[in-house]
Amino acid sequence: MKLLEERIRRDGEVREEGAVLKLDSFLNHQMDVELFNEMGKEFFRLFGDEGVTKLLTIEASGIGIACIAGQYFNVPVLFAKKSRSKNIDPDVYSAPVVSFTHGGVNEVMVSKRFLERGDRVLLIDDFLANGAALDGLISIVEQAGATVVGAGVCVEKAFQSGGVRLRGRGVRVEALARIAAMNETGIQFC
Amino acid sequence: MKLLEERIRRDGEVREEGAVLKLDSFLNHQMDVELFNEMGKEFFRLFGDEGVTKLLTIEASGIGIACIAGQYFNVPVLFAKKSRSKNIDPDVYSAPVVSFTHGGVNEVMVSKRFLERGDRVLLIDDFLANGAALDGLISIVEQAGATVVGAGVCVEKAFQSGGVRLRGRGVRVEALARIAAMNETGIQFC
Repeated sequence: MKLLEERIRRDGEVREEGAVLKLDSFLNHQMDVELFNEMGKEFFRLFGDEGVTKLLTIEASGIGIACIAGQYFNVPVLFAKKSRSKNIDPDVYSAPVVSFTHGGVNEVMVSKRFLERGDRVLLIDDFLANGAALDGLISIVEQAGATVVGAGVCVEKAFQSGGVRLRGRGVRVEALARIAAMNETGIQFC
Repeated sequence: MKLLEERIRRDGEVREEGAVLKLDSFLNHQMDVELFNEMGKEFFRLFGDEGVTKLLTIEASGIGIACIAGQYFNVPVLFAKKSRSKNIDPDVYSAPVVSFTHGGVNEVMVSKRFLERGDRVLLIDDFLANGAALDGLISIVEQAGATVVGAGVCVEKAFQSGGVRLRGRGVRVEALARIAAMNETGIQFC
C-alpha cells in the first residue's frame, strides 16, 4: 500500500541497529485515523469476500485499526486482553505471547462467550515480526473451534521469521507494507 | 444517550454486590463499532465547537472509542501507554494511575513530542468511576502546558466520587450514560 509505505519512509525511525522501527507518530501511540481508514478499507478489499464474522486483535496498539476496519466489515471487533481484570469472565481461552517490544511473556485471553465454533475470524494487528502475537491469537481461535480466515497486518518486518512461518502453516497473511531491510540510513520495501 | 442506556440495561451485568458493571459484550472486550460510531458522533456534538486539536485516551479500552470519535473531530488520537517499550521515546510525560479493575498502580506515559503548549485536548475513556485515569491524563496534559477542554466518557458510575471531584475542579465532564445506582436486580440511570 503506497500511502503507508510513503508514510513509513517519511515518519518512521529505525533504532537499535535496525532491530526496531518506531512508527509512534501515526501508528501505535499517536494515531492517524484518516490513514487507519485507508488501511481498514484495504483490509476489506483483501478479505471482504471471506465471510468474516468477527475481527480479533490484541491490546493495545491493534485496537484502533481493528475498530476502524470493523466499520467496513460490519462485524463485532474483539481484543485479546493481556491481564485478568474484574470485568472479564473467568472462563477464557488463553495463550502465552512473548512480547518483542516489551520483553516478557503475557498470557493473553478472550472470554469464551465471544468466540463460537461457526465464527470466521480475521486477525488484525499493527506489526508482524516474529509472529508471536498472531500465534497466540490463532491458538485462541482454534481452541474455540472457529476458523482463522487470515491475518491483516499493517507492517510486516519481512526479514524476521513470523511471516514465512505463518504462511508455511497455511495462514493467509496480508501485510499492507512489507519491509525487506532497514537501517539508520533507510528502509527498503519488498 | 438513550441508545447506550438501553444497551447497558439489556447487556450489562452487575457483579460483586454492585461494585462492578460488566459491559464486555459491547464496550471493553468485544466492541460494537456501530454503537461506538453513535457515541463518537455524540462526543462531537458535545465538544465539536471547542477547537479540539487532539484526543487523548489511555490503553486499552479507551482506544477504540477514541479512534472512532477521532473520525468526527478529524484530529490525531493519542493513547497514554501503561508500560515502557522499545518503540516509545525515553522522553515522556508520566503520571501514576491506580487501576480500579486490575488493582495496582501503572505509570502511564505520553511521549513529549505529541503534546504541545497550544494543544486543546479532549480526554476520552470508556468508564469514569473514581476518576484515577482522568486525573493521570489531566496531569500529563498540564505537564505539557496544554489545555484540557473536557472529558468525554461513555459510562459514569455517578455513585463513585470521580465525576463530582473532577467537575469540582472545573473540568467539563460529559458522560453518555450516568448510573445513579446498581445492583444484581437492576440499574438506575441519573
